[in-house]
Amino acid sequence: MMRAIDTQAFLKDLHDLRAIGRFRTGVHRPTYSAQDMESRRWLMRRLEECGLDPTIDGVGTVLGRHRGDGPHLLVGSHIESQNEAGWLDGALGVVAGLALARAGLPVDVCAFADEEGHFDVGFLGSRSAIGEVTEAEIDGSHNRTDGTPLRAALASAGLAGLPRMQLEAGRYRGFLEMHIEQGTQLESTGLRLGIVTGIVAIWQWRIVIEGAQDHAGGTTMAERRDAGLTAVRLLSAIDQAFPQVCGERSTWTTGRITLDPGAPSIIPGRAEILFQIRDVAVPVLERMEATLRALIRESNRRERCTATLEEISRNTPALCDPGLMGALSEAAEALCPGGWQTMPSGAGHDAQNVAKVMPAAMLFVPSIGGISHHWAEDTKEEDLALGVRVLAAAAERVLAAR
Amino acid sequence: MMRAIDTQAFLKDLHDLRAIGRFRTGVHRPTYSAQDMESRRWLMRRLEECGLDPTIDGVGTVLGRHRGDGPHLLVGSHIESQNEAGWLDGALGVVAGLALARAGLPVDVCAFADEEGHFDVGFLGSRSAIGEVTEAEIDGSHNRTDGTPLRAALASAGLAGLPRMQLEAGRYRGFLEMHIEQGTQLESTGLRLGIVTGIVAIWQWRIVIEGAQDHAGGTTMAERRDAGLTAVRLLSAIDQAFPQVCGERSTWTTGRITLDPGAPSIIPGRAEILFQIRDVAVPVLERMEATLRALIRESNRRERCTATLEEISRNTPALCDPGLMGALSEAAEALCPGGWQTMPSGAGHDAQNVAKVMPAAMLFVPSIGGISHHWAEDTKEEDLALGVRVLAAAAERVLAAR
Repeated sequence: MMRAIDTQAFLKDLHDLRAIGRFRTGVHRPTYSAQDMESRRWLMRRLEECGLDPTIDGVGTVLGRHRGDGPHLLVGSHIESQNEAGWLDGALGVVAGLALARAGLPVDVCAFADEEGHFDVGFLGSRSAIGEVTEAEIDGSHNRTDGTPLRAALASAGLAGLPRMQLEAGRYRGFLEMHIEQGTQLESTGLRLGIVTGIVAIWQWRIVIEGAQDHAGGTTMAERRDAGLTAVRLLSAIDQAFPQVCGERSTWTTGRITLDPGAPSIIPGRAEILFQIRDVAVPVLERMEATLRALIRESNRRERCTATLEEISRNTPALCDPGLMGALSEAAEALCPGGWQTMPSGAGHDAQNVAKVMPAAMLFVPSIGGISHHWAEDTKEEDLALGVRVLAAAAERVLAAR
Repeated sequence: MMRAIDTQAFLKDLHDLRAIGRFRTGVHRPTYSAQDMESRRWLMRRLEECGLDPTIDGVGTVLGRHRGDGPHLLVGSHIESQNEAGWLDGALGVVAGLALARAGLPVDVCAFADEEGHFDVGFLGSRSAIGEVTEAEIDGSHNRTDGTPLRAALASAGLAGLPRMQLEAGRYRGFLEMHIEQGTQLESTGLRLGIVTGIVAIWQWRIVIEGAQDHAGGTTMAERRDAGLTAVRLLSAIDQAFPQVCGERSTWTTGRITLDPGAPSIIPGRAEILFQIRDVAVPVLERMEATLRALIRESNRRERCTATLEEISRNTPALCDPGLMGALSEAAEALCPGGWQTMPSGAGHDAQNVAKVMPAAMLFVPSIGGISHHWAEDTKEEDLALGVRVLAAAAERVLAAR
C-alpha cells in the first residue's frame, strides 16, 4: 500500500527553485549569496507547508523536522550550486525529501550547507552536522574564489551566532540522498536508476613548482629554470604512469594550472597545479599517491625547478548501507523492472559524511549527456518522477520493517 | 678629442628616476599610470636643463630636440616599466641619451611610449613614430591586464588630442639604444659590453583547445574530453620536437596556461596557451612554425579535444647597421680592450622599429644574474658608467664621419 507521490507538485517545486538565481537553463547560487539565501528561505516555507518544523542553523543548513512519532528517515542533499551550474545538482535530493514529506512519510528533510565547497572547509554543512567541524576551522576558512572569510560571509548572510545543528543520534533509520548521476554510465546502458554502492574518496594536492622568473628573450633555453615547463613534463609523466597503477574506476584531474606571472614574454618563475585523485578503494588511492610522489622525486632529480606536494584535503571512501541499498533495489525493480544497476559514485556527496553516524544510501537518476557542474546539466522529467517514486517506495520499505 | 661624459650626473639621473614608482629595489611604472606620467614630466624637465626642446606626443612619447645644426643622432629607449620590474630596463637608454646631450653632443633624446606592451597594440610609441599605427588601431586597443581601452587611458593621462610625433626623415645619421642585456651571456663570459648584431623577431600565438566541461567525479577517464590534458600533451610534444628544428639561439616560451573554469573538481572544458617563438632568422622561425602546426594537426588526429592556432602577432627580425656597429665596436675596444663581444638580442626593442627608417644599433651592458622583468634586476654601476662612455665615444665617431 504505497503512499501516492504527487509528482506534479514535485516537478513544480523543482522549477520554482530553478527560478531562484536562474542562469541560462541552470542556476547560479554560490553559498551565502543573496540567491542562495533566498533559496533557503523558499525551502523553509515549503517545509512548513508540508507540515515540518523548519530551522536554519549557524552555517546555513536547513532542517525540516517531522512533528510525529518515529521511526524516521532523514532525506535530503544540498541547495547551493556551483557557479553558473545545473538546476538539479543538490536541489533534486532536497525537493525529493519535500515530496516524501508531502506524501505524509515520517521524514526529516535537510539541505546541508556548502556541499559544493565554495569555502575551503569542505562539506561544511554535513561535516558540521556530525560534529566534525570546530569553531577554529570556521575561523580559518575562506571563499576559494574571492578570499572572503567564512565568518564574514556568515555574518552578511545573517547566520552569525545561530547554533549549529547536530544530527540526533538514534532518531533515524537512515539517510537517503537522491542525486543526478553526473556521468553517462546510466545513459550509455539505457538504464534509468543507479543504486550507489559507495562514494569515492577524493585526495587533493597543490603541486607547487619553483623556478626563476626571467625575460623570455634574453634567457637562452639552456639557462632557463622554467616552472611552467617542469609542470608540463610532470603532468605528462602522470598521464603516462597513472593508467598502470589506477583501479578500474579511478579518476585523476588537473583542474587548474597557474603560471606566475602569466605574461607572454616572461618565463614563469612559479607554477601551481590543482590535482586530485578519486577511488572507492584506499589501497588504490595509496598506490596512486605513491606513484605521484615518485614522479615528483624523479622530476626533482632531473629538472632545474623544484616541485613540492602540498596536501589540500584527503577523506575516506564511504560504503553505502546494504539494508538501504536492498530497499532501493527492490523498489527500483518493482517500478522499473530491469531498468537499474548498482554503481559507485565518482563524485563526493554529503551522504559520505552522514554515513559515519547512520546507515546511508543514494539513488542516481541519469544525466543527459553526462553534463554536470555546467548550466546545461539536465535530466528527463520522466526520470525525475520515476526516481522520486522509487525513493518513496524504498523509504516505505525501510520504515515498515520491524 | 672625446667629450667628457659626466658619469656622476648620469648615475644621479638614474637614481632619481628610480625613485619614481619605486617598488622594492625596482620600479612599478605601467604605461600611463600616475608614476609613468610623473617620470615623463621628470624627463621633460631634464631635457630642458640639457638644452633640448622637449615635447610629449599623443601617445606619450617624449622627444627632446637638439636646437643646433646637424648632423644629428637619435638616442633613447623607453621609460615605462613592466609591472613591479627593474629600474634600468628602458630607463638606462633614455638617461644615457640625456648624458650625451649634457655633454653637448648634437643628439635628440627619445622615450618611446609603451615598449613594454601594457596595451595590445605593441611597441606603440616607436611604431607610431615611424607611421605604422593607424587611428583605428588605437581605437581598438586595450590594456592587456585590466581591459581599459587605450583611448580612455590616453584621456586620463591628459594626452588625448595631442599630435603624434613622426620621426623626421633625413634628420638623423642613426639611432643608438643602450640597454641591459636581460641575460647572462656577458656575465658568464666575463665581458662588459655587447654590440648587438640584430634583434630577434617574436611570433606569438594563442593555442585554444576545446573539450567538454564535466564533473571530475562522475566522468570516467574513458569518457573525458579534458582540454587541459590535451594542452599538456601538446606542450610536451613541443618540448620534445622543437630542439630538433630550432636554431642555435632560438627560444620558445609558454607564458600562460589558462584552464576554464579552473576549479579543482571540474574537468577543464577549454584551455588557452600563450606561446611565442624568437629568432633572428626567418627560415628558422618558419621551420618552428611548421613544426608547431604539424604537432597541432597530429594532436587533433589523436585527441578528443580540438586545438586551434590563433596568431597574436608576428614581426620581422631587425639587423643592426654595420656602420653604427663598427663605431660601437671601435669605441668599446678603445675603452675596454677585449672586454666586449657581438651578440644577438633575444628581446624585442624599439630599435627594431626605428631600424626601418634609419640606421640603428644597440649597446648592451651586463645584467647581474641575468635577472630581468623582475624588481631584482640590476647592473654594476661601473658597467653602467663604462656603457655610457662607449655610447658617447661611438656617437662622436659617427657624427665626425664625413
